[in-house]
Amino acid sequence: MTLGFDYIGDALAVDGVSLADLAGEYGTPLYVYSAEVMRHNYRRIERAFAGADVMIAYSVKSNSNLAVLKVLKDLGAGFDIVSGGELIRTQRVGIPGERVIFAGVGKTEKEISDALDAGVSEFNVESEAEAERINAVAAARGERAPVAIRINPNIDAKTHKYITTGKRENKFGISMGRALELAGRTRTDLPNLDLIGIHCHIGSQILDSSIHPRVVEAVVDFARKVMDKTGQPLKTLNFGGGFGIAYEKGQTPLDLQPFADALLPRLAELKVKLLLEPGRSIAGPAGVLLTRVEYIKKGEERTFAIVDAAMTELLRPTLYEAHHEILPVHRNDRETGRMDVVGPVCETGDFLALDREGAIPHQGDLLAVMDAGAYGFVMSSTYNARPRPAEILIDGGKALLARRRETHEDLLRAEDEVFAAN
Amino acid sequence: MTLGFDYIGDALAVDGVSLADLAGEYGTPLYVYSAEVMRHNYRRIERAFAGADVMIAYSVKSNSNLAVLKVLKDLGAGFDIVSGGELIRTQRVGIPGERVIFAGVGKTEKEISDALDAGVSEFNVESEAEAERINAVAAARGERAPVAIRINPNIDAKTHKYITTGKRENKFGISMGRALELAGRTRTDLPNLDLIGIHCHIGSQILDSSIHPRVVEAVVDFARKVMDKTGQPLKTLNFGGGFGIAYEKGQTPLDLQPFADALLPRLAELKVKLLLEPGRSIAGPAGVLLTRVEYIKKGEERTFAIVDAAMTELLRPTLYEAHHEILPVHRNDRETGRMDVVGPVCETGDFLALDREGAIPHQGDLLAVMDAGAYGFVMSSTYNARPRPAEILIDGGKALLARRRETHEDLLRAEDEVFAAN
Repeated sequence: MTLGFDYIGDALAVDGVSLADLAGEYGTPLYVYSAEVMRHNYRRIERAFAGADVMIAYSVKSNSNLAVLKVLKDLGAGFDIVSGGELIRTQRVGIPGERVIFAGVGKTEKEISDALDAGVSEFNVESEAEAERINAVAAARGERAPVAIRINPNIDAKTHKYITTGKRENKFGISMGRALELAGRTRTDLPNLDLIGIHCHIGSQILDSSIHPRVVEAVVDFARKVMDKTGQPLKTLNFGGGFGIAYEKGQTPLDLQPFADALLPRLAELKVKLLLEPGRSIAGPAGVLLTRVEYIKKGEERTFAIVDAAMTELLRPTLYEAHHEILPVHRNDRETGRMDVVGPVCETGDFLALDREGAIPHQGDLLAVMDAGAYGFVMSSTYNARPRPAEILIDGGKALLARRRETHEDLLRAEDEVFAAN
Repeated sequence: MTLGFDYIGDALAVDGVSLADLAGEYGTPLYVYSAEVMRHNYRRIERAFAGADVMIAYSVKSNSNLAVLKVLKDLGAGFDIVSGGELIRTQRVGIPGERVIFAGVGKTEKEISDALDAGVSEFNVESEAEAERINAVAAARGERAPVAIRINPNIDAKTHKYITTGKRENKFGISMGRALELAGRTRTDLPNLDLIGIHCHIGSQILDSSIHPRVVEAVVDFARKVMDKTGQPLKTLNFGGGFGIAYEKGQTPLDLQPFADALLPRLAELKVKLLLEPGRSIAGPAGVLLTRVEYIKKGEERTFAIVDAAMTELLRPTLYEAHHEILPVHRNDRETGRMDVVGPVCETGDFLALDREGAIPHQGDLLAVMDAGAYGFVMSSTYNARPRPAEILIDGGKALLARRRETHEDLLRAEDEVFAAN
């Protein structure tokens, strides 16, 4: 059995399971994930950092389906969450708080309190105001909250403007100078914060392997300064994620070796635990979005394949001008040409691929939008009153319905309940 | 009582109802709409085209809340839908099929059949392939389907690339030459199509009043050619919508007079009914998104107001770089400065306003994101496991809960049902 997505004869399959069969059974549009590919990707990261005391905390926001979280839980992963809703998801599959890290720039008092109840291992603190709020919530409970300060090293991740996070002018993290000052305050006026670590995440989908080693130098240097200033050891260094994947032909996933080579000796010197927060690099290549061609429309200047998936299912092409490869589920020798693959939503921005060269499909053909396992379903919407698709997890050659397709009744529920009463 | 959104003393109100009171009662983030502003906006369009035989078909996709549809229904509006889900919404509030127009590039067989069941007044046909499918579905039922051909006049609407729809290289409509040929086919090999009209919509948020008169010339000229070719009269000319609103200070809404002046004499000559499909110009200025400041974060180069609404509630700033005015719910004399208003979602693209000059709010302050009544809630998502906000309709000085706030249980329902079973 081939691991992952590959053709068996002319039929595209995942871990040996025919995608056409899945589309037949569950309908389209349909998300299909491979548990085995997720495990493979997780273990690749694990191997790169073998020898370190490390928790690989899967970024829940990239794909928060309960069945996916269960796969990661069973691998022994940690979990990086950014909201109270994501905390509930980890709890729903029985993940203990000590395997959870709580990040995000807008934590509410309730979220902080719920996270303390859950016993999360670390809050990544994004601002002085947040440090003060966590301190106050912890004080009111007579507790100390474990925190890591997220620093903003002003290193350009060279990625899309909407997914770079380490530059000075964005909302994430605290500049080095002010972060050091904040670290000092944990010894004075913020006594209910237990400063255990430093956090740094500079962006997503990084493919340049020279970036992370530079971040290592900045973070390690800063960690030493913090320990000097507070006179206390740190327990964790958290480098976030951002490990790029190969969305386009010719790309290769981020090589983690330069990062590990730069980092591992320093971890030993500092006697700290390594935390990583990968999401896309685990879930992204493990998923596809299956869609069926509703119409082929020959425009004046190009052909449009109008499919039954849209920006409502996969926003990345529209939002980030992101590239996803699109493969025919049945390999064929149809006429080739240039085409746009677009959805039925009434927006010019509703497309899955623009100006792509390839076999022009026929009406009724199935297409697989590749590498859609991360930032796919989680960013979906019900725009144009479109129910959201089902999600399938393939594991051990079996298909598990991981989320049933939404119904029109689901979409109307929160309105019907109040509309009928009026 | 002041109509619409205005300060009473220092407190921002809608139709005399305090927004702070609504935030207190229903929580934030919160969408608040004014029924009366919607009526006002509808009547403005009605007045501009007074004297014409006209159906103003509200674009359901702009704001499909049932309570909003009810307001428009009671005004006698028609409804422009783009999916089966939107058809169900119109049916839920008792709108008869003859007041419904079905548009959209990806109509499925089931949607076409359901729309025929409902007796919709017109299908806007976007491609030859769709014409063939509607013909086949109608033939199988022994019926004729009323259709309008959507033409693509290749006129630039001079708006954002994602909302322009009338240029040759996008997925909407049919070029004039091929549309004429298709019209001819309704007299030969597509006998189950009843060609009753021509449709043209060239984009959204149009502010240049010279655009629509040019479209009038193109459409009227084309309609004459169609009537010559088929030897049959047409019944409807549909000019879509796209009437721009004043999102930014200094803008003025599209002046409809040049459009009406160009159009009305032609309608009389052709003896056709006018169809219009406005959405934004009715619902947009009638709504605000209320949000509370969670944190004020002083960055190195700018101040960030981190609020509890995000790209999950209002995608337009992120997706289109769209401008929405942001007003303090309590007018104040706080220090002014430059700021970004950003949400708690873990994306650099999660912002509501960038580099805005104004009073820097304090933690806990309420802000109103203006002109959010259209393409607001309908494009919302649950990214970062965030439940979607409630929607309130103000009518006659009373607040109606038009959609209750989603719960975490709502978000988990479609997974829980299957996850628990495994």
